[in-house]
Amino acid sequence: MNKRMVAFFVGYVLRIEAVLMLLPTIVSVIYHEKEWMVLAATAVAVFVTGYLLSFKKPSNMSFYMREGITSVALGWIFMSIFGALPILIAVPHVGFTDALFETISGFTTTGASILHEVESLPKGILFWRSFTHWVGGMGVLVFMLAILPETAGDNIYLMRAESPGPSVGKLVPKVKSTAKILYEIYIAITLTEIISLVLAGMPLYHAMVISFGTVGTGGFAVTNAGCAVYTHLQQSIITVFMIMCGANFNIYFLVIARKFKEAFRSEEIIAYLSIYFFATACVAINVGNMFGNHMEAIHHGLFNVASVMTTTGFSTTDFNLWPNFSKSMLLVMMFIGGCAGSTAGGIKVSRIVIGFKTILKELEHLVHPRSVKILKFEGKPIEHAVLRGINVYFLTYFTVFACSVLLVALDGKDFTTTVTAVIATFNNIGPGLEMVGPTANFAHFSPFAKYVLMFDMLAGRLELFPMLLIFLPMTWRRQR
Amino acid sequence: MNKRMVAFFVGYVLRIEAVLMLLPTIVSVIYHEKEWMVLAATAVAVFVTGYLLSFKKPSNMSFYMREGITSVALGWIFMSIFGALPILIAVPHVGFTDALFETISGFTTTGASILHEVESLPKGILFWRSFTHWVGGMGVLVFMLAILPETAGDNIYLMRAESPGPSVGKLVPKVKSTAKILYEIYIAITLTEIISLVLAGMPLYHAMVISFGTVGTGGFAVTNAGCAVYTHLQQSIITVFMIMCGANFNIYFLVIARKFKEAFRSEEIIAYLSIYFFATACVAINVGNMFGNHMEAIHHGLFNVASVMTTTGFSTTDFNLWPNFSKSMLLVMMFIGGCAGSTAGGIKVSRIVIGFKTILKELEHLVHPRSVKILKFEGKPIEHAVLRGINVYFLTYFTVFACSVLLVALDGKDFTTTVTAVIATFNNIGPGLEMVGPTANFAHFSPFAKYVLMFDMLAGRLELFPMLLIFLPMTWRRQR
Repeated sequence: MNKRMVAFFVGYVLRIEAVLMLLPTIVSVIYHEKEWMVLAATAVAVFVTGYLLSFKKPSNMSFYMREGITSVALGWIFMSIFGALPILIAVPHVGFTDALFETISGFTTTGASILHEVESLPKGILFWRSFTHWVGGMGVLVFMLAILPETAGDNIYLMRAESPGPSVGKLVPKVKSTAKILYEIYIAITLTEIISLVLAGMPLYHAMVISFGTVGTGGFAVTNAGCAVYTHLQQSIITVFMIMCGANFNIYFLVIARKFKEAFRSEEIIAYLSIYFFATACVAINVGNMFGNHMEAIHHGLFNVASVMTTTGFSTTDFNLWPNFSKSMLLVMMFIGGCAGSTAGGIKVSRIVIGFKTILKELEHLVHPRSVKILKFEGKPIEHAVLRGINVYFLTYFTVFACSVLLVALDGKDFTTTVTAVIATFNNIGPGLEMVGPTANFAHFSPFAKYVLMFDMLAGRLELFPMLLIFLPMTWRRQR
Repeated sequence: MNKRMVAFFVGYVLRIEAVLMLLPTIVSVIYHEKEWMVLAATAVAVFVTGYLLSFKKPSNMSFYMREGITSVALGWIFMSIFGALPILIAVPHVGFTDALFETISGFTTTGASILHEVESLPKGILFWRSFTHWVGGMGVLVFMLAILPETAGDNIYLMRAESPGPSVGKLVPKVKSTAKILYEIYIAITLTEIISLVLAGMPLYHAMVISFGTVGTGGFAVTNAGCAVYTHLQQSIITVFMIMCGANFNIYFLVIARKFKEAFRSEEIIAYLSIYFFATACVAINVGNMFGNHMEAIHHGLFNVASVMTTTGFSTTDFNLWPNFSKSMLLVMMFIGGCAGSTAGGIKVSRIVIGFKTILKELEHLVHPRSVKILKFEGKPIEHAVLRGINVYFLTYFTVFACSVLLVALDGKDFTTTVTAVIATFNNIGPGLEMVGPTANFAHFSPFAKYVLMFDMLAGRLELFPMLLIFLPMTWRRQR
């Protein structure tokens, strides 16, 4: 293990975080809040720490898979610890565990909160809280790759470890250019949503924080009632952008490159939209008589299914009060999640589609044992390594899930709360059901359960392996 | 598809069922119950139907995987439909759906019941109900293989489709002899338990029905209070036999063959017992203050963890009242289940162990990408086909699970009831939590939900694929 190289990357991540903290500092200054000092001081502290870790490039630049994976895991952990400082200092009655929980929930775009009340909090702090969604959504290491000079090493490992999906590819031959294009698309979508919401009558501050939450598929709101306070038009705009950001960003690249055919023939996008509309139809029929009219039921169905499937976690209504079938449908959507290469969490549509194809192939094989069929996805044969990776992912996913439920169950809360708290954090959704429903929060858990859920949020966002590897002694041993 | 050959096998299964029904008929006669006529008449009807289906061997004896799988699935379905007749006729206020549910629950060794009260029912009928556990435990088609003359065809497909576990092997070169040995061991264990229970003071009738439930890992009791009515000694004997029957029957064959080293070095058995004792220790500590003293907590922990892990479903106490951690631990045990090649349900310990090894191998691969390691189980490298089979099994398992939860959720019951009803039937346990807890039953579900749960019981017992294949049109098409 090249520890110096890992330290260098972690240091660089912190430097970026420090610069990003200047944005909420400016917001704080604009609103004449004294908390600008907290934000500014934290930014300086983070920058100094980051600088100390990365002021000198290590002489040994060798950098392989395990260095890449470890850099990403540690980068996220340190970024969260430092990112928690403004909340720890500026929000009354919030201890370190809770501040860290809130920040990890922010960066991992989960949106699970320990705050009972947010409207009285300083605007700069809330801005930072929502901005973490935006930073974590596309990934801070991908951002680093976009701005760092291309090195000879294997930077693709960093990108693979931070980007969701079964097989992370480069859009263009160079990693640096791929990262740049991704961030350009990301910024363009964010600006479009902010402008759309402002045009629809939303105040600029709200438009910005809601857009950070939408585009990063986070879910922190700045009102206690969540998105219920916005107009139907504003909610519909949010719905459209949630669905856009749960889609594979490759298609936007294809659209820009005018490869429309390829973009709209994407199997993953077709499956994603089909599942979304099917689930919405089921829910809208099931909750039909809870709302004044059918249009209302469809509106809330579209918003809340999109919110849950893209793992955003916004809500326009307390879906914990919905009938059991709709709640179960939402839970299944939570597991499925968005597309690979999006900012969403969950298992990802592509893995689900490939999983289904694997089952069908097995059934065909049982009927016709001599038939030889090659599994294809997006028109191409699926590489053996990708298939193996998906299988291992599923095994690991359900193992971590079961262990987490057992550990959180030590708190003694009811079964639904325990299980949905793990589902909501591990898939980076935010709200679950019962005591962690859309109108409730995570403050009532014990510190131990909170650390388990923090692990789940990070493991979910980084797709399991980085968070497991850093606990293995063999990761830290010298290269054989 | 060679439909005549499938019909031949199904007919033969029914003939065997008819003969087996004579045992409860005799019991009914002994107790001077008028229901002996119901049982005798059903036996005759079943035999005639079976005879009509199988009186002539088909001229085309070709028999491949899909014929084997279809025979097993249809054999189980027809056996259940005919087996339900005594309950339908002799038990008041029970309709066809409920009678079928009870019988499928019996044959699949689930033990989930729709009866509110059993003590007033005729002894012959209750004997038949418990005897279905014994018949379904080792498998009626395995029994058929033991008595049918060895054919040239590929009978191993029948055995593979009916026997649980990732890779079904023959103990000795011939399928017929393997089936015979398995049934000899099975009968020996059953008789030993009956004698042990009688020596411990249990009436013979109770000893027999409880032994059928234990050895088949079923769970139907003949008292409303389940196994709580028996003495601690009797309960401990049941515990030992539950654990014995959740173990891979191969080890008994090895013991008989005096290959003690091989038997006690079995990775699956070691993992099975380790998980069992670990879970029992956790539960005993967690429920410690619910019982008078620690020994009592350990006694109930040993019994109920064994009952749930071996998917038997007996209970000495209402574990729905246990703290959430213990309940979650029981649920995790329900998923794990017993060993391959046992009469237990669930995912099976061998699949769990191989799954864990797969995860560890992946982590090692991430740290040392160039290391090449071969996965081993029980000292032998795991064949690629077995590994693929396990992966597909997991994918299919969770897909069927999610779909079942959604469909059962249409009933509108609470989340815990819905989810644990599916867990308890799909893994062939019996009781779940809340409205399907140890003191409750499944009568309150809608007919639709009951059919979904019946499908789950059969799919769980036959390890998914037989029950899926019979719904595919391609299964029924002519061979290409």
